Amino acid sequence: MSCYLKGKDKILIRLKRMEGQVRGIQRMVQQGKYCIDILTQLSSVMAASQKLGLIVLENHIQGCVRGAVSHKRDNASVEELVKVIQEFVKS
Amino acid sequence: MSCYLKGKDKILIRLKRMEGQVRGIQRMVQQGKYCIDILTQLSSVMAASQKLGLIVLENHIQGCVRGAVSHKRDNASVEELVKVIQEFVKS
Amino acid sequence: MSCYLKGKDKILIRLKRMEGQVRGIQRMVQQGKYCIDILTQLSSVMAASQKLGLIVLENHIQGCVRGAVSHKRDNASVEELVKVIQEFVKS
Amino acid sequence: MSCYLKGKDKILIRLKRMEGQVRGIQRMVQQGKYCIDILTQLSSVMAASQKLGLIVLENHIQGCVRGAVSHKRDNASVEELVKVIQEFVKS
Repeated sequence: MSCYLKGKDKILIRLKRMEGQVRGIQRMVQQGKYCIDILTQLSSVMAASQKLGLIVLENHIQGCVRGAVSHKRDNASVEELVKVIQEFVKS
Repeated sequence: MSCYLKGKDKILIRLKRMEGQVRGIQRMVQQGKYCIDILTQLSSVMAASQKLGLIVLENHIQGCVRGAVSHKRDNASVEELVKVIQEFVKS
Repeated sequence: MSCYLKGKDKILIRLKRMEGQVRGIQRMVQQGKYCIDILTQLSSVMAASQKLGLIVLENHIQGCVRGAVSHKRDNASVEELVKVIQEFVKS
Repeated sequence: MSCYLKGKDKILIRLKRMEGQVRGIQRMVQQGKYCIDILTQLSSVMAASQKLGLIVLENHIQGCVRGAVSHKRDNASVEELVKVIQEFVKS
């Protein structure tokens, strides 16, 4: 099944920024930076992934699930949605 | 203040893997992959940052805080530790 | 809008257990129990609320959202769902 | 090992409020209230446990760990602290 992701460009900008953050943490580790500063950067990556995950989830619910449900192909997509929310909440 | 991070090599391997995951998600977005699969990958990045954060935190508490406390330079380091745990728990 | 919650009895058993846990923590605080043990109990209450939240969320998505969407009353319910997931993920 | 918890009264007030919230959710379930409102209340219990957990953790680090470390009884208490933070972050 395919599903159109709205606002691809903005999502890619967020992902590029996350990639930059992860590379920045690598440099901090190599240069022996203070662990508290490394932890702050890791918290920031976690927050950025969570924010982006919520954007993708909203997009999915508003587009794909709604489309699937109104076309009576809903069982699989509802179960799949519940499963991905569980993974997301627990991580 | 500086603080020696034990197991730098293993930490860098984890960060390289996280960077690869984030780049993989960029490709998935560009290729219009299914949003549920994108979300699963984002949950995996969140779990990886959390895991690494706990490793750095353990290292910090066992090395830097203990050292600071036993040298009577503890006030700042204990407050800093509490603050970083708050950020980490909330993100 | 009303929405039928399946498995009310099991949900009430979980809530009774959570209430018992919270009262148990009160006794621990009054008796001056070790803070690590208090924290372990608080983590357990958090895990229990999260588990129950996921059960209610699954129930809501499988019942109420699906019903709303297939009856073309979907806009409000989808927005509401996204909002409650955001609250839940962030807390 | 014992450990003095500062601000017991305020902590007990928070726990009483949490107990009231959990009982309120039981009534909501019994009365067949809308699941989104139940979820909002559960998110609020999770946020309240997290907030209280951070208060107890701060108290523990500032009092018990510091005391233990400066008295050279630190190994066990540092390991225990790391373990409880892991439980707390993951739940």
